[in-house]
Amino acid sequence: MALYKDLSKDELISLRSELTKKYEDFKKLGLKLDMSRGKPNKEQLDLSNGLLDVIVSTSDFKTVDGFDTRNYGLLLGIPEARELFAELMGVEPKNVVMYGTASLTIMYDYISQCMVMGSGGEPWMKQGRIKFLCPAPGYDRHFAILEHFGIDLIAIRMNDNGPDMDSIEELVKDSSVKGIFCVPKYSNPDGITFSDEVVRRFAALKPAANDFRVIWDNAYLVHDINDTPDELLNIFDVAKEYGSEDMFIEVCSTSKITFAGAGVSAIAASEKNIDAILSRMTVQTISHDKMNQMRHVRFFKNLDGIKAHMKKHAEILRPKFEAVTSGFTKAFEGTGIAHWKNPNGGYFVSLYVMNGCAMRVGELCKDAGLTLTTVGATYPYGIDPYDSNIRIAPSFPDIDELNKAVELLCICVKLAAVEKLLKDYKYKEWLKYDSSNI
Amino acid sequence: MALYKDLSKDELISLRSELTKKYEDFKKLGLKLDMSRGKPNKEQLDLSNGLLDVIVSTSDFKTVDGFDTRNYGLLLGIPEARELFAELMGVEPKNVVMYGTASLTIMYDYISQCMVMGSGGEPWMKQGRIKFLCPAPGYDRHFAILEHFGIDLIAIRMNDNGPDMDSIEELVKDSSVKGIFCVPKYSNPDGITFSDEVVRRFAALKPAANDFRVIWDNAYLVHDINDTPDELLNIFDVAKEYGSEDMFIEVCSTSKITFAGAGVSAIAASEKNIDAILSRMTVQTISHDKMNQMRHVRFFKNLDGIKAHMKKHAEILRPKFEAVTSGFTKAFEGTGIAHWKNPNGGYFVSLYVMNGCAMRVGELCKDAGLTLTTVGATYPYGIDPYDSNIRIAPSFPDIDELNKAVELLCICVKLAAVEKLLKDYKYKEWLKYDSSNI
Repeated sequence: MALYKDLSKDELISLRSELTKKYEDFKKLGLKLDMSRGKPNKEQLDLSNGLLDVIVSTSDFKTVDGFDTRNYGLLLGIPEARELFAELMGVEPKNVVMYGTASLTIMYDYISQCMVMGSGGEPWMKQGRIKFLCPAPGYDRHFAILEHFGIDLIAIRMNDNGPDMDSIEELVKDSSVKGIFCVPKYSNPDGITFSDEVVRRFAALKPAANDFRVIWDNAYLVHDINDTPDELLNIFDVAKEYGSEDMFIEVCSTSKITFAGAGVSAIAASEKNIDAILSRMTVQTISHDKMNQMRHVRFFKNLDGIKAHMKKHAEILRPKFEAVTSGFTKAFEGTGIAHWKNPNGGYFVSLYVMNGCAMRVGELCKDAGLTLTTVGATYPYGIDPYDSNIRIAPSFPDIDELNKAVELLCICVKLAAVEKLLKDYKYKEWLKYDSSNI
Repeated sequence: MALYKDLSKDELISLRSELTKKYEDFKKLGLKLDMSRGKPNKEQLDLSNGLLDVIVSTSDFKTVDGFDTRNYGLLLGIPEARELFAELMGVEPKNVVMYGTASLTIMYDYISQCMVMGSGGEPWMKQGRIKFLCPAPGYDRHFAILEHFGIDLIAIRMNDNGPDMDSIEELVKDSSVKGIFCVPKYSNPDGITFSDEVVRRFAALKPAANDFRVIWDNAYLVHDINDTPDELLNIFDVAKEYGSEDMFIEVCSTSKITFAGAGVSAIAASEKNIDAILSRMTVQTISHDKMNQMRHVRFFKNLDGIKAHMKKHAEILRPKFEAVTSGFTKAFEGTGIAHWKNPNGGYFVSLYVMNGCAMRVGELCKDAGLTLTTVGATYPYGIDPYDSNIRIAPSFPDIDELNKAVELLCICVKLAAVEKLLKDYKYKEWLKYDSSNI
């Protein structure tokens, strides 16, 4: 296959007819496919059906230290859950607080707390306009939290080893820059894991704002999909060397480990930050669901239990990721119209189509019954400056649906590229025509 | 027994020795009793142990409309839970949103939402100093939420039929008054249920602030303890007559129906308010724990199931309430040093000791091993202007402990009253001595 950009006008026109025919054939199938959200599939959820058994029974509903999990109390979470999540995040149990079903809620809450009470300085809402750094492409729900609170978003370029630290080091000199959201392992959507150097530079940051916070959203910390998993440095270990532990708020959850709709989540933070969080949490709730915490601890027993469980997820997910990436290779090799990441874990494949084509691809897919993550959503304010990135979530559809979806998507990507190139030809011709008439 | 205020100085001195001896005897027992929080006891929690059975199994984890409760989604809650809670609160399912374990979190969240996004007008945090009305004595955690957000608290006197509506109608003429917290049935701590007239006057309120909100914390809506339960008018039925539905935010939970630490909660509100709540909730979470919602629905089946269940709670609680009130009658009849409410439901007995004595009673109890709700906590800013109210939570201790606790408490109340009367004598004597020397 020749590079699309080298094709003649006639070649493009003939390619367009060919692709349009294929596209129209797909349209006739009346498909309803969805690759928009990182949702576990039924097979994955079944792995945790043991949680539905009686694992907290009428005779053993007490914590290791004899607390009745059915009643109020233990605001921090049951001791055994704090221990398990401490092991998971590589911190001490005293640095862990258990929450409800979603780490998103923890992050929302933490930002809300900073707005109302501050994070060591004046409440953020009393400091005028404030800003947050947003590695982009990134997680749309992070951006949504910031927009909700009226915080300005500054996009930071993602490099292959993590966000561009040169920009970050420069931007944090501005004291109105209050923080940054990160997915440090298998980033959403690129599947990039921050290199040791990037993690160290994070720990070494000296922001002008002494109430600057890094939200370390470790959503995919044990979510490897193959035998060459990425390794992420433990941020708190490194931060200790720089005395910067107070700068980091780490969160994780079992949403993509057990049940997405009924898991548990946790925060890891310095003792100072935990104290601040608690002073607010006391006002906010009496306790989170301790029984669900207990179910989870008993189901996994320990970190090895979680790891063994994640291997089963990997078995299910790997073929799906491979279906996507091999579909892309087959369709795009030699065309020069798309590139993508081959992540070792996480939940997404990040596809970059020809600049200026992503929205058109989204439109074409939608009209043929394939829902993608809203194009642009992976960038602050929903605007992809290159109109190029498309986040693919391969987990939910079954493999047949997925193959169909990928095939359709590739046709749309090609069609959009051809349309774009033809438009460019037209423009060039118009320029020629125009100048010959002067 | 003579009225304490009519006792001579010598009689008081001799009564003091007698009470002091009894008190010291109690102290020697090294008791550890707690009547501070409205916590269900073990026997009550056992009533809901059916929730620990497999009631959501590997073959029936889907909602009535086929949604997999294990996965993300259904932000509003599962349809059958919304239906059950709609029945419970007497509204339409479309007006109900399910939440996590605690209605306290809903209220916290709602106020937070008003601060950041407003409730129809400018965000509250952009409106300068704002105020909330607080029926007092009231629920300390309501006050804590307001204080947390820097909202000024204005105490409203509780009458026997609810908060003093004359004051409320007057105060809402000030547009910086943004709302009021209420426990309309079996109020915390007085156990008062708002009369039909009070509910109507609430519905008819015309506050100067068009973003005024009444937080209708219906915590004890089915929590009767005897055969003469109070009846509360349905606020949304009445509000409809006045077109004031948008003013009311009702919340309830199963914290004191099933498991205090692992229940479900819900909000009822007008469609306009639900829309506003959802626009925020979308940013905040992906879904609450739908499995726990399902467990609850299947455990109860319907409203009759809840009502039958509450009768069992009443059987357990009634003797405890009676132990407290009959203990009070025995100890205080004819003394004129205390009065109290005999509620038909809820979780508290509200005791009023001689003015200026409550803090001393708290101190005496504490030194003898009996923990009470912090004296003053039932008033805004923790200050009871009469230093008189003590909130008694009889649910948690067993009946023997409770009898002991009540006996000790009554001795402390008497001792504090005698001390106070002797101090008054001393003061009167000093006045006499002083004036005779002029």
